[in-house]
Amino acid sequence: MANHKLLLLPGDGIGPEVMGQVEKIVSWFEKQGLASFSLERGLVGGSAYDAHKAAISEGDMKLAQEADAVLFGAVGGPKWADVPYQHRPEAGLLRLRKDLGLFANLRPAICYPALASASSLKPEVVEGLDILIVRELTGGVYFGEPKEIVTLEDGQKRGVDTQLYTTGEIERIARVAFELARTRRNKVSSAEKHNVMKTGVLWKQTVTALHAAEYKDVELEHVLADNCAMQLVRWPKQYDVVVCDNLFGDILSDVAAMLTGSLGMLPSASLGAEDPATGKRKALYEPVHGSAPDIAGKGLANPIAMIGSFAMALRYSFGAGEAADRLEGAIADVLGAGTRTKDIAAPGANAVSTTEMGEAIIKAL
Amino acid sequence: MANHKLLLLPGDGIGPEVMGQVEKIVSWFEKQGLASFSLERGLVGGSAYDAHKAAISEGDMKLAQEADAVLFGAVGGPKWADVPYQHRPEAGLLRLRKDLGLFANLRPAICYPALASASSLKPEVVEGLDILIVRELTGGVYFGEPKEIVTLEDGQKRGVDTQLYTTGEIERIARVAFELARTRRNKVSSAEKHNVMKTGVLWKQTVTALHAAEYKDVELEHVLADNCAMQLVRWPKQYDVVVCDNLFGDILSDVAAMLTGSLGMLPSASLGAEDPATGKRKALYEPVHGSAPDIAGKGLANPIAMIGSFAMALRYSFGAGEAADRLEGAIADVLGAGTRTKDIAAPGANAVSTTEMGEAIIKAL
Ligand SMILES: CC(C)[C@H](C(=O)O)[C@@H](O)C(=O)O
Ligand SMILES: CC(C)[C@H](C(=O)O)[C@@H](O)C(=O)O
Repeated sequence: MANHKLLLLPGDGIGPEVMGQVEKIVSWFEKQGLASFSLERGLVGGSAYDAHKAAISEGDMKLAQEADAVLFGAVGGPKWADVPYQHRPEAGLLRLRKDLGLFANLRPAICYPALASASSLKPEVVEGLDILIVRELTGGVYFGEPKEIVTLEDGQKRGVDTQLYTTGEIERIARVAFELARTRRNKVSSAEKHNVMKTGVLWKQTVTALHAAEYKDVELEHVLADNCAMQLVRWPKQYDVVVCDNLFGDILSDVAAMLTGSLGMLPSASLGAEDPATGKRKALYEPVHGSAPDIAGKGLANPIAMIGSFAMALRYSFGAGEAADRLEGAIADVLGAGTRTKDIAAPGANAVSTTEMGEAIIKAL
Repeated sequence: MANHKLLLLPGDGIGPEVMGQVEKIVSWFEKQGLASFSLERGLVGGSAYDAHKAAISEGDMKLAQEADAVLFGAVGGPKWADVPYQHRPEAGLLRLRKDLGLFANLRPAICYPALASASSLKPEVVEGLDILIVRELTGGVYFGEPKEIVTLEDGQKRGVDTQLYTTGEIERIARVAFELARTRRNKVSSAEKHNVMKTGVLWKQTVTALHAAEYKDVELEHVLADNCAMQLVRWPKQYDVVVCDNLFGDILSDVAAMLTGSLGMLPSASLGAEDPATGKRKALYEPVHGSAPDIAGKGLANPIAMIGSFAMALRYSFGAGEAADRLEGAIADVLGAGTRTKDIAAPGANAVSTTEMGEAIIKAL
């Protein structure tokens, strides 16, 4: 039984609470003899800044580089509103993505049948929804230089951000989208703004060429990013896999997540390139939700997105697809039995705590 | 009675059909002696390219510069998919926005009570919705340089777009948002990505400073653009005025429009700075919907967004608030009476044509 190196970075706000539930599940898998992990723990975000004056320490970056997978909670909160920009909580996450080369961010938006009524959309629009946003995560306006604020001669300031994409960067993310589409409903929708952005022109050309060369069996459509946002609200079931750049992915995946009415439910995986020597890829798994400082420490947080992120780690990093199925099945069973944290409970209905939800899922395993 | 110079640029696809209805309404106002217009007509988009090999001719740009208001239909369609990039249909619109200095794009998203059920959102989420997206329209990644595709030494290509904002550009759009909020529910939500973008940092700082200096009576909140997209889907009524940059505005306004379930219904205004000498501002009015080439020429298009855009022109460019109220009232009456074009009719229900809708509105005037 392989020993998997797992780094836990709970972060800030509700991060530690939801990560706590994953720790119990990790122990359960070990006790059953189903898997073996060597666990490390580190700090990221505001809590790292408090300890090290950096959003992630060099030591924790080293642990992340060595890990088979990183589990990431959430970062940020009002406490750190005024820390220097390069040390803001998000900088820890951005550095992990960039330095580990995690270019492929997979964000499934699945509407759990038991929760369809929690959506702000009509049930028929979201029932059975199962789409996947594939977001480029190490390029674009997030990392391009120049990225600065300068003072002009007349005393005004000017801010600059630079959106950059190379053919190679676009190809490798499109490839991930096409490959995943083949395991699903075989359709890729590529979203950009080629009518306004040159990176959009290159994006569309590159995806088109790769499709023609290697993925003709997959249905490909091009959609303008603004229209895609609109279509996600109008009739999201028209999509299977949506592939897009870092910034559009940020927004489109949040829209997609909200359709399901269960933001506390959605996991994500961020994957690097496969190492040709070892066949391994670096990976980070995190819930789509943020650190929710307003409810931190109150036992109100829904741990399902975090637990689902661990399930994705089992599947994509540890080759333990059966264990992943089992864990996801347990989540579905618990929901099917009506167990709800506050965020997904009907107004006025009984809700369980973060810990109770974690324990219910272990029981259902 | 002032004589208003109005330039009609119907454009492509359904543009001419919906503009045709406005022409009849213009005649009606003139016949009633309620207003007097001197009308010019021009070409924009694909139809301009067919005639002049440019998405707008210099002659029509001159007419636009001289007009008190431009009414714009829609541009684009598959016919022009392969024209040179600088002549693509959208280039005509982008040039009008930039050269006329139309920095303030107002996009109201109003859910007509008669149409609440057409939304993909639950009725309680959208009923009574009345929000206004104020989008910066002449800056940001739409126009920043460098904006190019270059070939690298290794044969790869690299695309570049540049997001630029100065303090002055941010201040003037924020001012529009604060002023409009004072005439509404007195709340401004400023959306950016300061956690990732330096232009976002400058945006937040500048809006905060202007608020503290001149608009303390208006409630101001800052929201990350991704979260704003999400909140628009979750509970849009939390917003009054949302102010944001060009690219975020493109996407957020499309999401907001789709909430109302009636994309064919929504008008927009794009305004320039007030000329201190004349008190006038350049302006362009256009529907939020596109050229819908698939239904062009079939009499299926809903002319209400175009007619509503003319109502906005009456209000913002011609100082004819009463005439605008009357026209908007006529639209509401016609809808109240159950008249529907196909896009807003219940599935299977009877629908009227573009022309019939235009005539029904004139009758209700
Ligand atoms: C926290 C923030 C930097 C991050 C992003 O913008 O990518 C978040 O919104 C996300 O989508 O993971
Ligand atoms: C047609 C296109 C250039 C335009 C834009 O991106 O601004 C459109 O989407 C809009 O929102 O008016």
